[in-house]
Amino acid sequence: MKFDVLTLFPDLIQSHMDFSIMKRASEDKIIEVNTINPRDYSLDKHKKVDDTPYGGGAGMVLAPQPYVDAYENIEKTENSITIMMTPQGEPFCDKISNELAKFDQIIILCGHYEGYDERIREIIKPREISIGDFVLTGGELPALCLIDSVSRKIEGTLGKIESAHDDSFADGLLEYPQYTKPREYRGLKVPDVLLNGNHKLIEEFRFQQKIERTKNKRPDLYEIWKQNNL
Amino acid sequence: MKFDVLTLFPDLIQSHMDFSIMKRASEDKIIEVNTINPRDYSLDKHKKVDDTPYGGGAGMVLAPQPYVDAYENIEKTENSITIMMTPQGEPFCDKISNELAKFDQIIILCGHYEGYDERIREIIKPREISIGDFVLTGGELPALCLIDSVSRKIEGTLGKIESAHDDSFADGLLEYPQYTKPREYRGLKVPDVLLNGNHKLIEEFRFQQKIERTKNKRPDLYEIWKQNNL
Repeated sequence: MKFDVLTLFPDLIQSHMDFSIMKRASEDKIIEVNTINPRDYSLDKHKKVDDTPYGGGAGMVLAPQPYVDAYENIEKTENSITIMMTPQGEPFCDKISNELAKFDQIIILCGHYEGYDERIREIIKPREISIGDFVLTGGELPALCLIDSVSRKIEGTLGKIESAHDDSFADGLLEYPQYTKPREYRGLKVPDVLLNGNHKLIEEFRFQQKIERTKNKRPDLYEIWKQNNL
Repeated sequence: MKFDVLTLFPDLIQSHMDFSIMKRASEDKIIEVNTINPRDYSLDKHKKVDDTPYGGGAGMVLAPQPYVDAYENIEKTENSITIMMTPQGEPFCDKISNELAKFDQIIILCGHYEGYDERIREIIKPREISIGDFVLTGGELPALCLIDSVSRKIEGTLGKIESAHDDSFADGLLEYPQYTKPREYRGLKVPDVLLNGNHKLIEEFRFQQKIERTKNKRPDLYEIWKQNNL
Protein backbone atom coordinates (compact mmCIF):
# COMPACT_ATOMS: atom_id res chain seq x y z
CA MET A 1 0.00 0.00 0.00
CA LYS A 2 1.34 3.37 -1.01
CA PHE A 3 0.25 6.46 0.88
CA ASP A 4 0.96 9.82 -0.78
CA VAL A 5 0.34 12.63 1.68
CA LEU A 6 0.01 16.25 0.53
CA THR A 7 1.05 18.37 3.48
CA LEU A 8 2.76 21.65 4.33
CA PHE A 9 4.38 19.83 7.26
CA PRO A 10 5.94 16.66 5.82
CA ASP A 11 8.07 16.16 8.94
CA LEU A 12 4.92 15.75 11.03
CA ILE A 13 4.06 12.72 8.93
CA GLN A 14 7.54 11.28 8.51
CA SER A 15 8.55 11.62 12.16
CA HIS A 16 5.64 9.41 13.11
CA MET A 17 6.77 6.65 10.77
CA ASP A 18 9.85 5.95 12.87
CA PHE A 19 7.86 4.17 15.57
CA SER A 20 6.30 0.87 16.50
CA ILE A 21 4.20 -1.01 14.00
CA MET A 22 4.34 1.74 11.34
CA LYS A 23 8.12 1.53 11.34
CA ARG A 24 8.11 -2.22 10.95
CA ALA A 25 5.50 -2.14 8.20
CA SER A 26 7.62 0.42 6.30
CA GLU A 27 10.78 -1.60 6.74
CA ASP A 28 8.96 -4.72 5.56
CA LYS A 29 7.77 -2.78 2.47
CA ILE A 30 4.16 -3.52 3.35
CA ILE A 31 3.42 0.17 3.39
CA GLU A 32 5.21 3.12 1.84
CA VAL A 33 4.49 6.65 3.00
CA ASN A 34 5.52 9.56 0.78
CA THR A 35 4.97 13.22 1.45
CA ILE A 36 4.45 15.94 -1.14
CA ASN A 37 4.67 19.58 -0.08
CA PRO A 38 2.34 21.88 -2.06
CA ARG A 39 4.75 24.70 -1.22
CA ASP A 40 7.22 23.16 -3.67
CA TYR A 41 4.62 23.68 -6.39
CA SER A 42 3.71 27.26 -5.59
CA LEU A 43 4.18 29.59 -8.57
CA ASP A 44 4.31 32.58 -6.23
CA LYS A 45 7.78 34.10 -6.03
CA HIS A 46 7.71 33.85 -2.22
CA LYS A 47 6.36 30.27 -2.41
CA LYS A 48 3.17 31.38 -0.73
CA VAL A 49 0.49 28.73 -0.33
CA ASP A 50 -2.28 30.70 1.34
CA ASP A 51 -3.97 34.08 1.37
CA THR A 52 -6.73 35.99 3.15
CA PRO A 53 -10.34 34.86 2.61
CA TYR A 54 -12.62 36.68 0.17
CA GLY A 55 -15.54 38.16 2.04
CA GLY A 56 -13.44 38.77 5.14
CA GLY A 57 -12.88 36.76 8.30
CA ALA A 58 -9.90 35.69 10.34
CA GLY A 59 -7.28 33.22 9.21
CA MET A 60 -5.63 32.19 6.00
CA VAL A 61 -7.10 29.99 3.29
CA LEU A 62 -5.10 27.47 1.25
CA ALA A 63 -4.92 28.71 -2.34
CA PRO A 64 -5.92 26.34 -5.16
CA GLN A 65 -2.86 26.50 -7.42
CA PRO A 66 -0.18 24.86 -5.22
CA TYR A 67 -2.51 22.08 -4.03
CA VAL A 68 -3.98 21.27 -7.42
CA ASP A 69 -0.60 21.29 -9.17
CA ALA A 70 1.00 19.15 -6.46
CA TYR A 71 -1.90 16.72 -6.70
CA GLU A 72 -1.80 16.44 -10.45
CA ASN A 73 1.91 15.73 -10.35
CA ILE A 74 1.40 12.55 -8.30
CA GLU A 75 1.63 9.37 -10.33
CA LYS A 76 -1.60 7.45 -9.83
CA THR A 77 -2.00 3.71 -9.96
CA GLU A 78 -5.11 2.09 -11.42
CA ASN A 79 -6.45 1.22 -8.00
CA SER A 80 -6.03 4.57 -6.33
CA ILE A 81 -8.30 6.72 -4.15
CA THR A 82 -7.99 10.35 -3.07
CA ILE A 83 -9.04 11.39 0.43
CA MET A 84 -9.35 14.88 1.83
CA MET A 85 -9.05 15.11 5.61
CA THR A 86 -11.62 17.69 6.72
CA PRO A 87 -14.02 18.12 9.63
CA GLN A 88 -16.71 18.32 6.95
CA GLY A 89 -16.17 14.76 5.71
CA GLU A 90 -18.00 11.56 6.51
CA PRO A 91 -17.00 10.21 9.92
CA PHE A 92 -14.14 7.72 9.65
CA CYS A 93 -14.87 4.28 11.08
CA ASP A 94 -13.69 0.70 11.03
CA LYS A 95 -15.86 -0.08 8.00
CA ILE A 96 -14.27 2.70 5.91
CA SER A 97 -10.87 1.49 7.05
CA ASN A 98 -11.65 -1.97 5.64
CA GLU A 99 -12.82 -0.42 2.36
CA LEU A 100 -9.69 1.70 1.99
CA ALA A 101 -7.39 -1.25 2.67
CA LYS A 102 -8.47 -2.69 -0.70
CA PHE A 103 -6.82 0.09 -2.70
CA ASP A 104 -3.14 0.00 -3.52
CA GLN A 105 -2.64 3.76 -3.37
CA ILE A 106 -4.24 6.29 -1.05
CA ILE A 107 -3.58 9.96 -1.74
CA ILE A 108 -4.34 12.08 1.31
CA LEU A 109 -4.83 15.86 1.28
CA CYS A 110 -4.08 17.58 4.57
CA GLY A 111 -5.38 21.08 5.18
CA HIS A 112 -3.94 23.54 7.68
CA TYR A 113 -5.02 26.91 9.08
CA GLU A 114 -8.57 27.97 8.14
CA GLY A 115 -9.12 25.42 5.41
CA TYR A 116 -9.04 24.78 1.69
CA ASP A 117 -10.16 27.13 -1.07
CA GLU A 118 -13.44 25.53 -2.16
CA ARG A 119 -12.16 25.09 -5.71
CA ILE A 120 -9.60 22.52 -4.50
CA ARG A 121 -12.61 20.32 -3.61
CA GLU A 122 -14.34 21.08 -6.90
CA ILE A 123 -11.34 20.22 -9.07
CA ILE A 124 -9.87 17.22 -7.24
CA LYS A 125 -13.23 15.76 -6.11
CA PRO A 126 -11.75 13.76 -3.23
CA ARG A 127 -13.67 11.52 -0.85
CA GLU A 128 -13.92 13.75 2.21
CA ILE A 129 -13.27 12.07 5.55
CA SER A 130 -13.36 13.43 9.09
CA ILE A 131 -11.97 11.61 12.11
CA GLY A 132 -14.47 13.27 14.45
CA ASP A 133 -16.55 16.29 15.34
CA PHE A 134 -13.69 18.40 16.61
CA VAL A 135 -11.26 20.85 15.03
CA LEU A 136 -7.51 20.43 14.76
CA THR A 137 -4.73 22.68 13.53
CA GLY A 138 -4.21 20.56 10.45
CA GLY A 139 -5.06 17.35 8.66
CA GLU A 140 -1.78 15.68 9.58
CA LEU A 141 -2.96 13.91 12.76
CA PRO A 142 -6.15 12.71 11.03
CA ALA A 143 -4.03 11.48 8.10
CA LEU A 144 -1.80 9.55 10.51
CA CYS A 145 -4.85 8.02 12.18
CA LEU A 146 -6.13 6.91 8.79
CA ILE A 147 -2.74 5.50 7.76
CA ASP A 148 -2.38 3.62 11.06
CA SER A 149 -5.90 2.23 11.00
CA VAL A 150 -5.80 1.17 7.34
CA SER A 151 -2.30 -0.32 7.66
CA ARG A 152 -3.54 -2.61 10.43
CA LYS A 153 -5.96 -4.15 7.93
CA ILE A 154 -3.24 -5.10 5.48
CA GLU A 155 -1.90 -8.60 5.75
CA GLY A 156 1.58 -8.71 7.22
CA THR A 157 1.41 -5.44 9.15
CA LEU A 158 0.45 -7.05 12.41
CA GLY A 159 2.85 -9.77 13.42
CA LYS A 160 1.80 -12.97 15.06
CA ILE A 161 1.94 -11.20 18.37
CA GLU A 162 -0.84 -8.74 17.54
CA SER A 163 -4.33 -9.35 16.38
CA ALA A 164 -7.01 -7.30 14.69
CA HIS A 165 -9.97 -9.65 14.76
CA ASP A 166 -10.66 -9.23 18.49
CA ASP A 167 -10.40 -5.45 18.32
CA SER A 168 -13.26 -3.15 19.18
CA PHE A 169 -15.71 -2.64 16.28
CA ALA A 170 -14.52 -5.71 14.34
CA ASP A 171 -17.95 -7.28 14.99
CA GLY A 172 -19.78 -4.07 15.88
CA LEU A 173 -19.15 -4.45 19.61
CA LEU A 174 -16.56 -3.04 22.01
CA GLU A 175 -13.75 -5.33 23.14
CA TYR A 176 -14.08 -7.54 26.21
CA PRO A 177 -12.01 -6.73 29.32
CA GLN A 178 -8.44 -7.96 29.24
CA TYR A 179 -6.39 -9.28 32.15
CA THR A 180 -2.78 -10.27 32.51
CA LYS A 181 -0.47 -11.18 35.40
CA PRO A 182 -0.60 -11.00 38.37
CA ARG A 183 -3.71 -12.95 39.31
CA GLU A 184 -4.34 -10.53 42.10
CA TYR A 185 -3.26 -6.88 42.14
CA ARG A 186 -4.16 -4.56 45.02
CA GLY A 187 -6.94 -6.92 46.01
CA LEU A 188 -8.44 -7.03 42.52
CA LYS A 189 -8.61 -10.53 41.09
CA VAL A 190 -8.70 -11.85 37.56
CA PRO A 191 -12.17 -13.43 37.02
CA ASP A 192 -12.05 -17.16 37.81
CA VAL A 193 -13.51 -18.17 34.48
CA LEU A 194 -10.38 -16.91 32.69
CA LEU A 195 -8.17 -19.18 34.77
CA ASN A 196 -9.98 -22.50 34.42
CA GLY A 197 -8.93 -23.29 30.84
CA ASN A 198 -12.49 -24.04 29.67
CA HIS A 199 -12.49 -22.35 26.30
CA LYS A 200 -16.22 -22.57 25.76
CA LEU A 201 -16.91 -20.83 29.08
CA ILE A 202 -14.22 -18.23 28.40
CA GLU A 203 -15.76 -17.45 25.03
CA GLU A 204 -19.23 -17.14 26.53
CA PHE A 205 -17.93 -14.87 29.31
CA ARG A 206 -16.13 -12.62 26.85
CA PHE A 207 -19.09 -12.39 24.51
CA GLN A 208 -21.39 -11.50 27.39
CA GLN A 209 -18.92 -8.84 28.54
CA LYS A 210 -18.76 -7.33 25.06
CA ILE A 211 -22.52 -7.02 24.95
CA GLU A 212 -22.79 -5.56 28.47
CA ARG A 213 -20.01 -3.13 27.85
CA THR A 214 -21.34 -1.92 24.53
CA LYS A 215 -24.83 -1.56 26.01
CA ASN A 216 -23.49 0.57 28.89
CA LYS A 217 -20.83 2.61 27.19
CA ARG A 218 -22.17 3.00 23.66
CA PRO A 219 -25.92 2.40 23.52
CA ASP A 220 -25.87 3.78 19.94
CA LEU A 221 -23.55 1.00 18.77
CA TYR A 222 -25.50 -1.58 20.75
CA GLU A 223 -28.75 -0.65 18.98
CA ILE A 224 -27.11 -1.08 15.57
CA TRP A 225 -25.59 -4.40 16.63
CA LYS A 226 -28.96 -5.61 17.98
CA GLN A 227 -30.74 -4.79 14.74
CA ASN A 228 -28.16 -6.74 12.76
CA ASN A 229 -27.82 -9.72 15.09
CA LEU A 230 -30.99 -10.42 17.06
CA MET B 1 -2.44 24.04 30.74
CA LYS B 2 -0.25 21.11 31.67
CA PHE B 3 -0.60 17.84 29.80
CA ASP B 4 0.98 14.77 31.41
CA VAL B 5 0.99 11.89 28.96
CA LEU B 6 1.61 8.30 30.09
CA THR B 7 3.04 6.50 27.11
CA LEU B 8 5.48 3.76 26.18
CA PHE B 9 6.47 5.93 23.18
CA PRO B 10 7.25 9.38 24.58
CA ASP B 11 9.06 10.40 21.38
CA LEU B 12 5.83 10.00 19.42
CA ILE B 13 4.31 12.72 21.57
CA GLN B 14 7.33 14.98 21.85
CA SER B 15 8.25 14.90 18.17
CA HIS B 16 4.84 16.30 17.35
CA MET B 17 5.33 19.27 19.65
CA ASP B 18 8.05 20.72 17.44
CA PHE B 19 5.59 21.93 14.83
CA SER B 20 3.21 24.72 13.98
CA ILE B 21 0.80 26.04 16.57
CA MET B 22 1.73 23.43 19.20
CA LYS B 23 5.33 24.57 19.06
CA ARG B 24 4.40 28.20 19.47
CA ALA B 25 2.01 27.46 22.33
CA SER B 26 4.78 25.54 24.12
CA GLU B 27 7.31 28.29 23.57
CA ASP B 28 4.82 30.86 24.84
CA LYS B 29 4.28 28.68 27.95
CA ILE B 30 0.57 28.47 27.24
CA ILE B 31 0.79 24.72 27.21
CA GLU B 32 3.32 22.31 28.67
CA VAL B 33 3.46 18.72 27.50
CA ASN B 34 5.27 16.17 29.66
CA THR B 35 5.63 12.48 29.01
CA ILE B 36 5.90 9.72 31.59
CA ASN B 37 6.98 6.26 30.50
CA PRO B 38 5.39 3.46 32.57
CA ARG B 39 8.39 1.33 31.62
CA ASP B 40 10.49 3.45 33.98
CA TYR B 41 8.22 2.31 36.81
CA SER B 42 8.20 -1.39 36.01
CA LEU B 43 9.36 -3.49 38.96
CA ASP B 44 10.13 -6.36 36.61
CA LYS B 45 13.85 -7.00 36.28
CA HIS B 46 13.58 -6.78 32.48
CA LYS B 47 11.40 -3.64 32.73
CA LYS B 48 8.52 -5.53 31.16
CA VAL B 49 5.25 -3.64 30.90
CA ASP B 50 2.99 -6.24 29.32
CA ASP B 51 2.20 -9.93 29.34
CA THR B 52 -0.06 -12.48 27.65
CA PRO B 53 -3.81 -12.31 28.36
CA TYR B 54 -5.47 -14.64 30.86
CA GLY B 55 -8.01 -16.81 29.07
CA GLY B 56 -5.93 -16.87 25.89
CA GLY B 57 -6.00 -14.79 22.74
CA ALA B 58 -3.46 -13.00 20.59
CA GLY B 59 -1.52 -9.94 21.64
CA MET B 60 -0.06 -8.51 24.78
CA VAL B 61 -1.93 -6.77 27.57
CA LEU B 62 -0.53 -3.81 29.53
CA ALA B 63 0.09 -4.96 33.10
CA PRO B 64 -1.36 -2.93 35.99
CA GLN B 65 1.74 -2.30 38.11
CA PRO B 66 3.83 -0.05 35.82
CA TYR B 67 0.82 2.05 34.74
CA VAL B 68 -0.67 2.50 38.19
CA ASP B 69 2.69 3.32 39.81
CA ALA B 70 3.57 5.78 37.03
CA TYR B 71 0.18 7.42 37.40
CA GLU B 72 0.35 7.73 41.15
CA ASN B 73 3.75 9.34 40.92
CA ILE B 74 2.39 12.29 38.90
CA GLU B 75 1.90 15.43 40.94
CA LYS B 76 -1.73 16.47 40.57
CA THR B 77 -3.05 20.00 40.73
CA GLU B 78 -6.40 20.80 42.35
CA ASN B 79 -8.03 21.28 38.97
CA SER B 80 -6.85 18.13 37.25
CA ILE B 81 -8.61 15.48 35.16
CA THR B 82 -7.44 12.03 34.04
CA ILE B 83 -8.34 10.76 30.59
CA MET B 84 -7.83 7.27 29.18
CA MET B 85 -7.63 7.12 25.39
CA THR B 86 -9.51 3.98 24.39
CA PRO B 87 -11.85 2.96 21.56
CA GLN B 88 -14.30 2.10 24.36
CA GLY B 89 -14.61 5.67 25.58
CA GLU B 90 -17.22 8.32 24.88
CA PRO B 91 -16.72 9.85 21.43
CA PHE B 92 -14.57 12.98 21.60
CA CYS B 93 -16.19 16.11 20.22
CA ASP B 94 -15.93 19.88 20.24
CA LYS B 95 -18.11 20.12 23.37
CA ILE B 96 -15.80 17.84 25.37
CA SER B 97 -12.85 19.85 24.11
CA ASN B 98 -14.41 23.01 25.57
CA GLU B 99 -15.03 21.23 28.88
CA LEU B 100 -11.46 19.96 29.11
CA ALA B 101 -10.00 23.39 28.36
CA LYS B 102 -11.26 24.54 31.77
CA PHE B 103 -8.89 22.25 33.69
CA ASP B 104 -5.32 23.27 34.37
CA GLN B 105 -3.90 19.74 34.19
CA ILE B 106 -4.91 16.90 31.92
CA ILE B 107 -3.33 13.51 32.55
CA ILE B 108 -3.66 11.26 29.51
CA LEU B 109 -3.19 7.48 29.54
CA CYS B 110 -2.17 5.97 26.21
CA GLY B 111 -2.57 2.26 25.63
CA HIS B 112 -0.66 0.25 23.08
CA TYR B 113 -0.93 -3.29 21.70
CA GLU B 114 -4.05 -5.19 22.78
CA GLY B 115 -5.08 -2.84 25.55
CA TYR B 116 -5.04 -2.22 29.27
CA ASP B 117 -5.44 -4.75 32.06
CA GLU B 118 -8.97 -4.03 33.27
CA ARG B 119 -7.69 -3.26 36.78
CA ILE B 120 -5.91 -0.14 35.49
CA ARG B 121 -9.39 1.24 34.74
CA GLU B 122 -10.75 0.08 38.08
CA ILE B 123 -7.99 1.67 40.14
CA ILE B 124 -7.38 4.94 38.26
CA LYS B 125 -11.04 5.49 37.26
CA PRO B 126 -10.23 7.78 34.34
CA ARG B 127 -12.72 9.47 32.06
CA GLU B 128 -12.56 7.24 28.99
CA ILE B 129 -12.47 9.01 25.65
CA SER B 130 -12.37 7.66 22.09
CA ILE B 131 -11.60 9.74 19.04
CA GLY B 132 -13.67 7.51 16.78
CA ASP B 133 -14.97 4.06 15.95
CA PHE B 134 -11.73 2.74 14.57
CA VAL B 135 -8.71 0.97 16.03
CA LEU B 136 -5.17 2.32 16.16
CA THR B 137 -1.87 0.84 17.28
CA GLY B 138 -1.78 3.05 20.35
CA GLY B 139 -3.35 5.94 22.18
CA GLU B 140 -0.63 8.38 21.13
CA LEU B 141 -2.34 9.77 18.01
CA PRO B 142 -5.64 10.15 19.87
CA ALA B 143 -3.79 11.88 22.73
CA LEU B 144 -2.20 14.30 20.24
CA CYS B 145 -5.61 15.01 18.70
CA LEU B 146 -6.99 15.78 22.15
CA ILE B 147 -4.02 17.99 23.05
CA ASP B 148 -4.28 19.88 19.74
CA SER B 149 -8.02 20.37 19.95
CA VAL B 150 -8.05 21.43 23.62
CA SER B 151 -5.05 23.74 23.16
CA ARG B 152 -6.93 25.64 20.45
CA LYS B 153 -9.57 26.52 23.06
CA ILE B 154 -7.07 28.14 25.41
CA GLU B 155 -6.67 31.87 25.11
CA GLY B 156 -3.39 32.83 23.50
CA THR B 157 -2.81 29.61 21.56
CA LEU B 158 -4.28 30.92 18.35
CA GLY B 159 -2.67 34.16 17.24
CA LYS B 160 -4.54 37.00 15.61
CA ILE B 161 -4.09 35.25 12.31
CA GLU B 162 -6.16 32.21 13.26
CA SER B 163 -9.64 31.95 14.57
CA ALA B 164 -11.64 29.32 16.36
CA HIS B 165 -15.11 30.87 16.42
CA ASP B 166 -15.82 30.26 12.72
CA ASP B 167 -14.60 26.65 12.86
CA SER B 168 -16.83 23.71 12.10
CA PHE B 169 -18.95 22.60 15.11
CA ALA B 170 -18.48 25.90 17.01
CA ASP B 171 -22.22 26.56 16.51
CA GLY B 172 -23.24 22.98 15.69
CA LEU B 173 -22.85 23.47 11.92
CA LEU B 174 -20.10 22.74 9.41
CA GLU B 175 -18.01 25.64 8.19
CA TYR B 176 -19.01 27.69 5.13
CA PRO B 177 -16.93 27.41 1.93
CA GLN B 178 -13.76 29.50 1.87
CA TYR B 179 -12.22 31.26 -1.10
CA THR B 180 -8.98 33.12 -1.60
CA LYS B 181 -7.09 34.56 -4.59
CA PRO B 182 -7.29 34.35 -7.54
CA ARG B 183 -10.84 35.46 -8.35
CA GLU B 184 -10.92 32.93 -11.13
CA TYR B 185 -8.99 29.67 -11.21
CA ARG B 186 -9.40 27.20 -14.09
CA GLY B 187 -12.72 28.78 -14.96
CA LEU B 188 -14.06 28.53 -11.41
CA LYS B 189 -15.03 31.88 -9.95
CA VAL B 190 -15.32 33.15 -6.41
CA PRO B 191 -19.05 33.81 -5.74
CA ASP B 192 -19.89 37.47 -6.51
CA VAL B 193 -21.43 38.08 -3.12
CA LEU B 194 -18.02 37.65 -1.45
CA LEU B 195 -16.53 40.40 -3.61
CA ASN B 196 -19.10 43.17 -3.17
CA GLY B 197 -18.15 44.21 0.34
CA ASN B 198 -21.73 44.06 1.68
CA HIS B 199 -21.15 42.43 5.03
CA LYS B 200 -24.79 41.73 5.73
CA LEU B 201 -25.17 39.85 2.42
CA ILE B 202 -21.89 38.00 3.00
CA GLU B 203 -23.05 36.89 6.42
CA GLU B 204 -26.38 35.70 5.05
CA PHE B 205 -24.69 33.82 2.22
CA ARG B 206 -22.28 32.10 4.59
CA PHE B 207 -24.99 31.16 7.06
CA GLN B 208 -27.11 29.69 4.26
CA GLN B 209 -24.09 27.72 3.00
CA LYS B 210 -23.43 26.33 6.47
CA ILE B 211 -26.98 25.08 6.72
CA GLU B 212 -27.01 23.59 3.21
CA ARG B 213 -23.68 21.93 3.72
CA THR B 214 -24.54 20.45 7.09
CA LYS B 215 -27.88 19.22 5.75
CA ASN B 216 -26.18 17.50 2.80
CA LYS B 217 -23.02 16.18 4.39
CA ARG B 218 -24.10 15.49 7.95
CA PRO B 219 -27.86 15.12 8.27
CA ASP B 220 -27.34 13.82 11.83
CA LEU B 221 -25.73 17.10 12.92
CA TYR B 222 -28.33 19.09 11.02
CA GLU B 223 -31.18 17.40 12.91
CA ILE B 224 -29.57 18.25 16.25
CA TRP B 225 -28.96 21.84 15.16
CA LYS B 226 -32.58 22.17 13.94
CA GLN B 227 -33.96 20.96 17.26
CA ASN B 228 -31.89 23.49 19.14
CA ASN B 229 -32.38 26.45 16.83
CA LEU B 230 -35.71 26.35 14.98
